[in-house]
Amino acid sequence: MNFSILTLGSASALPVKGRNPSAHILDIGEQLFLLDCGEGTQMQMQKFRVKISKISKIFITHLHGDHYFGLSGLLSSFHLYRRTDKIELYGPPILRDILDLQFKASNTNLSFELDFIPIEENYIGKIFEDKNIIVETFPLQHRIPTHAYVFRQKNIKRNINKDFVEAENPPFEAIRSIKNGKDFISESGKLFKNEDITYVRKDLSSFAYCTDTIFDPSIVPHLEGVNTIYHEATFGNDNEEHAKEKHHSTAQQAAKIAKMSNAKQLIIGHYSSRYDDLNVLLSEAKEVFENTKLAIEGQWIDEFY
Amino acid sequence: MNFSILTLGSASALPVKGRNPSAHILDIGEQLFLLDCGEGTQMQMQKFRVKISKISKIFITHLHGDHYFGLSGLLSSFHLYRRTDKIELYGPPILRDILDLQFKASNTNLSFELDFIPIEENYIGKIFEDKNIIVETFPLQHRIPTHAYVFRQKNIKRNINKDFVEAENPPFEAIRSIKNGKDFISESGKLFKNEDITYVRKDLSSFAYCTDTIFDPSIVPHLEGVNTIYHEATFGNDNEEHAKEKHHSTAQQAAKIAKMSNAKQLIIGHYSSRYDDLNVLLSEAKEVFENTKLAIEGQWIDEFY
Repeated sequence: MNFSILTLGSASALPVKGRNPSAHILDIGEQLFLLDCGEGTQMQMQKFRVKISKISKIFITHLHGDHYFGLSGLLSSFHLYRRTDKIELYGPPILRDILDLQFKASNTNLSFELDFIPIEENYIGKIFEDKNIIVETFPLQHRIPTHAYVFRQKNIKRNINKDFVEAENPPFEAIRSIKNGKDFISESGKLFKNEDITYVRKDLSSFAYCTDTIFDPSIVPHLEGVNTIYHEATFGNDNEEHAKEKHHSTAQQAAKIAKMSNAKQLIIGHYSSRYDDLNVLLSEAKEVFENTKLAIEGQWIDEFY
Repeated sequence: MNFSILTLGSASALPVKGRNPSAHILDIGEQLFLLDCGEGTQMQMQKFRVKISKISKIFITHLHGDHYFGLSGLLSSFHLYRRTDKIELYGPPILRDILDLQFKASNTNLSFELDFIPIEENYIGKIFEDKNIIVETFPLQHRIPTHAYVFRQKNIKRNINKDFVEAENPPFEAIRSIKNGKDFISESGKLFKNEDITYVRKDLSSFAYCTDTIFDPSIVPHLEGVNTIYHEATFGNDNEEHAKEKHHSTAQQAAKIAKMSNAKQLIIGHYSSRYDDLNVLLSEAKEVFENTKLAIEGQWIDEFY
């Protein structure tokens, strides 16, 4: 299982030129996570055939409308589809009040449990962990409280050396226990230490979602070991000053963050409506960080090692 | 100037099959009114090239999400486009609280005046009048407080008989005063009574927007003299009982309201996602009221006399 990222919306504040407000799907295998939910996200999901029943967690970075105005509609649709599986929703505390007020106004009693996990301003740390993944968050510097989210696949099991398996042909139960870290004793009584017959996987997926933010190298330590970074790139070099004023980044600044973080892959998005040709932004980023990709509505980008 | 209605969204609760949630543009000539504003309305406006700067008033029928979840996004876009012209917004009182909370969360101080006119539950009466039009409202029977809106072009001036103009050739100032109801005295001293040389226009536009509602003949008196009625038609005859349970109407019930109201034209919309072929609904309505038209995204329907 590797992470894959589907872009549902690559626009910044104004939805224009066929570009929708921010929303991305992170496919971690058995579940889908939704990262931001701008207006029209549920229609984009229909268009790109996302199975909305597989969405288990939603992460909202901040409460500028282009990052969450589609959330109430999506939750309402879950309700109309009579969803019963819980949804975990992560976001700024006031989001709970907004949703409560909207559902009170529509007299809606959701068919499913909406487990809201408030992310307090300036909170840094782990917000979720199970046997497969860890999710962390840290604050970004934007005009209102904003958080990045980091998703790391966990190294839960060791892989067994092929040579050992072929030579010793261990039974199925032994394979399970070896993967869980146990030693192995062969029928002839020979001891095989676990570290000698297994190795640690090097292809664990990790992904960070950083939007919206001013260029801020102080976030680099939080991105340690992250393979793929999504970083907003609202502007090009031509608007570097404007980006700073608006607490946004340029494509090249996004690339600098990826380079400083030793990432393997950068995805840029959240493009200002003033850019018709996104290759301008892509080129500027590639000057600094070669393996940069454009977030484009409907396109999947796979984890990269 | 005649009224024209553009459908931006014809779906009921779930946006599917390329059908968007409720939103219509009423073009009254110099201004556009927006009737409901479901999620994605601003994208639909871009798609169908509606000049959003011409929108002066917005009317929200009720606070089920499919009728207003696009409103905050549209108002945010007005702000980002640096609109300065006032917007009048009519809707249930709690809508003000929802918008206030959202704009507080995004730290947005709108660039234009948002004049909110709360429509109290069960209020019946005139809510706007200028020299050209009157807007009235009355409650509909739905699951939460809901209002219909009626737009009537005013008969502000009398038209002068062509025969009289040709025979007497009155000066320009006299034409103005005759149109405003004054008598006319010719150069030869002959008195022409106003009622003998003018007539009342019979082609005044009027439009009523009735959604969402159970079949309710008690609304007919409020629709007196209305030429074109939009009435929700969520279901077909096959779901008449279900319509009643959900406080919605069938297409044929919408047609009955149009017939009882002596309307000239009926527009049906707000279709349930279960109907692929809308001609089923159209046929059932036409059995009762021949001049029925389907609301279809992107299609304009002109006033009909």
